[in-house]
Amino acid sequence: DEMVKRNYIFDTIKSVYQRYGYMPLETPTMENIETLLGKYGDEGDKLIFRILDNGDPLKGAVSSSLNSNYGEHLFDSSKFVNDISGKGLRYDLTVPFARYVVMHQNEITFPFKRYQIQPVWRADRPQKGRYREFYQCDADVIGSTSLLNEIELIQIIDDVFSNFGLKVLIKINNRKILNGIADYFEVQNNFSEFINIIDKIDKKELSEIEKDLQSINFNFEKLDDLPLFEFTVRTEQTANWEIMRMVLNDYEIAFRKCNSIIGLNGINEMLTIVNHFDQDKTNRNLLVDSEKISFTPHLARGLSYYTGTILEVTVNDPRTQFRSSILGGGRYDDLTGIFGLPNVSGVGISFGADRIYDVMEELKLFPESVAATTKILFVNFGKEEERYCLRLIQKVREAGINAELYPDQAKMKKQMSYADAKKIPYVALIGEEEMKTEMISLKNMITGEQEKISTQNLIAKLNNII
Amino acid sequence: DEMVKRNYIFDTIKSVYQRYGYMPLETPTMENIETLLGKYGDEGDKLIFRILDNGDPLKGAVSSSLNSNYGEHLFDSSKFVNDISGKGLRYDLTVPFARYVVMHQNEITFPFKRYQIQPVWRADRPQKGRYREFYQCDADVIGSTSLLNEIELIQIIDDVFSNFGLKVLIKINNRKILNGIADYFEVQNNFSEFINIIDKIDKKELSEIEKDLQSINFNFEKLDDLPLFEFTVRTEQTANWEIMRMVLNDYEIAFRKCNSIIGLNGINEMLTIVNHFDQDKTNRNLLVDSEKISFTPHLARGLSYYTGTILEVTVNDPRTQFRSSILGGGRYDDLTGIFGLPNVSGVGISFGADRIYDVMEELKLFPESVAATTKILFVNFGKEEERYCLRLIQKVREAGINAELYPDQAKMKKQMSYADAKKIPYVALIGEEEMKTEMISLKNMITGEQEKISTQNLIAKLNNII
Repeated sequence: DEMVKRNYIFDTIKSVYQRYGYMPLETPTMENIETLLGKYGDEGDKLIFRILDNGDPLKGAVSSSLNSNYGEHLFDSSKFVNDISGKGLRYDLTVPFARYVVMHQNEITFPFKRYQIQPVWRADRPQKGRYREFYQCDADVIGSTSLLNEIELIQIIDDVFSNFGLKVLIKINNRKILNGIADYFEVQNNFSEFINIIDKIDKKELSEIEKDLQSINFNFEKLDDLPLFEFTVRTEQTANWEIMRMVLNDYEIAFRKCNSIIGLNGINEMLTIVNHFDQDKTNRNLLVDSEKISFTPHLARGLSYYTGTILEVTVNDPRTQFRSSILGGGRYDDLTGIFGLPNVSGVGISFGADRIYDVMEELKLFPESVAATTKILFVNFGKEEERYCLRLIQKVREAGINAELYPDQAKMKKQMSYADAKKIPYVALIGEEEMKTEMISLKNMITGEQEKISTQNLIAKLNNII
Repeated sequence: DEMVKRNYIFDTIKSVYQRYGYMPLETPTMENIETLLGKYGDEGDKLIFRILDNGDPLKGAVSSSLNSNYGEHLFDSSKFVNDISGKGLRYDLTVPFARYVVMHQNEITFPFKRYQIQPVWRADRPQKGRYREFYQCDADVIGSTSLLNEIELIQIIDDVFSNFGLKVLIKINNRKILNGIADYFEVQNNFSEFINIIDKIDKKELSEIEKDLQSINFNFEKLDDLPLFEFTVRTEQTANWEIMRMVLNDYEIAFRKCNSIIGLNGINEMLTIVNHFDQDKTNRNLLVDSEKISFTPHLARGLSYYTGTILEVTVNDPRTQFRSSILGGGRYDDLTGIFGLPNVSGVGISFGADRIYDVMEELKLFPESVAATTKILFVNFGKEEERYCLRLIQKVREAGINAELYPDQAKMKKQMSYADAKKIPYVALIGEEEMKTEMISLKNMITGEQEKISTQNLIAKLNNII
């Protein structure tokens, strides 16, 4: 049951990605340990699952270790681990993707649009919403600086969540705007601490935020001209192009004052995106409804490789308390640089399938009947009926309908509870009389109603409910 | 490109499995090492990838190992490996499935029909057709002894390969018939050696087979009454219900002579299957064409847990030399017994997706245009055109057509080679004139032809080619 729902999530995301020209990619589960180490911070390194080398590398490694430390009991376990384990399980999809792009740069046509839906592994303590093995659903364009890519990714986000019937808020910011803000409040030297602090503006008490900001010498006097906290609240609550434009305008003035070129670039990029989403002159079609998008100047997202647009999606439905982000993304100007291919800009998003599953389950958003499930069970009454049904069910399946014949000549009650347990909506009863008249006694398992129906009409009926 | 084709294989297998009422299951990548060890023979144990425990278990494990062997340099590396590695990567899908069934026996409705398409890992030396990470595509029914399950699995095999346009031979045998043969030739005490020898009847010289059989005291005199080797050749070459019946009849007589009850049971099971596939009285529909199925009495398949029907599929197309099996399967009477749930019979099959990929590639059986690929590229001529195209392309995508807008205002030549490289069949050119007249200049990338077309007609045209 869970897998059917999960596949529904994956299939929806997959087909929307394909609709926008992203092609599938899968990379191997195991990466060389050097590819993984040092990419996710010290904490991340500790959470990488490592594979023991095969053969018997231990004997050698341990004896060498025994000899060198003979009688000393000093033991460099991290050196030893490297000796016996040269590979690790992938920790995310972005780093293996970057490695792949660099390795295959001569075969790839840029801009390269790929999606990747695969599990990743983290040696975390498992808890609600955090698993040791979970799926990521990424899409990235690499080799294009155009902001059209950001716009299409936002459309993809909107398409996917509209398909799910899940109301969301798409928060956008730009790392360059964060740089401008840091310039303006004179905390550029403590940039990473600064963004970590303001990223928590909506999670912590204001007094705590202020204390944290004091510790990095934030210039509080300048808050009069650029009311950072107020804007945050204002843009969070009302997603509206006009307000977004006004706030962007205030930021622009502030950045001009402190002469923050990078901040002004960020404003320009944001305006390009906002202008694209805004109504066109004829007031016709909007690409995405404005109330779904919010400019969120404090949004930072921890990952250090983002350099431009930042995206995050949260659920926006009063019926749930679910507050975690269910999608993250952004633009990175030099992801492949660490693998020897500098200056290739890319932008990507990653759906959090497990969290989306949890919230859709809570809000009961999964469709009643998913295409994968069985639509009709043929009851097994005996040898002759089996033979008859095997041929009849073949026709039903050829018409694209998922159908089962109960394999054993079990008691009626047992066969019926099988249909119930598998939530099969229809049961076909075919005995001597039905075989003679070439009709099917069809039972609707929800209403309990029973009718006689021909094979043709059965197929038409079942095709209708799919 | 490869992924698109692989997904085509997976999607086809998946949808056929679902058509027969099999539901998806995924199990975790990592299993406790005790679940895996001892299930695949000594060779298998060596090929299991092991995960290093997290945290720092090494320090303790190594110092304890140092102390106990202090100064001795004796080192029990397998004990040490167990101390530092409690988990391994799954080696196949069957053992984790059996573990799952036992763990969840109280939630599962039997008969339990599940399919599972996931990668497995083996620390083999990689070579052509043999990979360290590869996909298995399994379906199993557990909790039903009915031979209808075998019959449906054979129909599934036929459906899948018919979909692929791949000509195959489905070889069937029964472990019980092998037992009967062993009874008859008085080699029951060397049963596993015996089946290993005759499994190679079509791979080795007859003289070699005879030598191998001598070493286990095979009673050659009895070959006069049951010409094992001749039958083998006969049934291999002509898959025909009548011949199958005749051969089964000869075996039956032989098994009666040596009073092999198990052999006779095997004959009965085979006849039940053959009779189901045979034409019915009215000569109407065959479930599967007889020339696709071959009774192959020497077929053994190495895996020791099979106890009834055995299945194997090979390619049957004169255009290829591909001889490896591309599917295996069979019935096992006690797979879950090792995990504490005895006497639950099951039967399953496993498609070898990687080998199927290789042979389909060789025979050029992949469809030209797979649904996943982009059908039309909109050329990017500039700011105004971008804005116009973004809205137009939205309509095309809403009609279910995969479409791309080139993200950068690059040179025409570059955009065209992008379409070529991605094998996009149509390119839309929209400049000032097209925007004014609301028409699209459409270029067919294969013929080079160009035409003016309205949005509605474009959608109709592209929907036609999908």
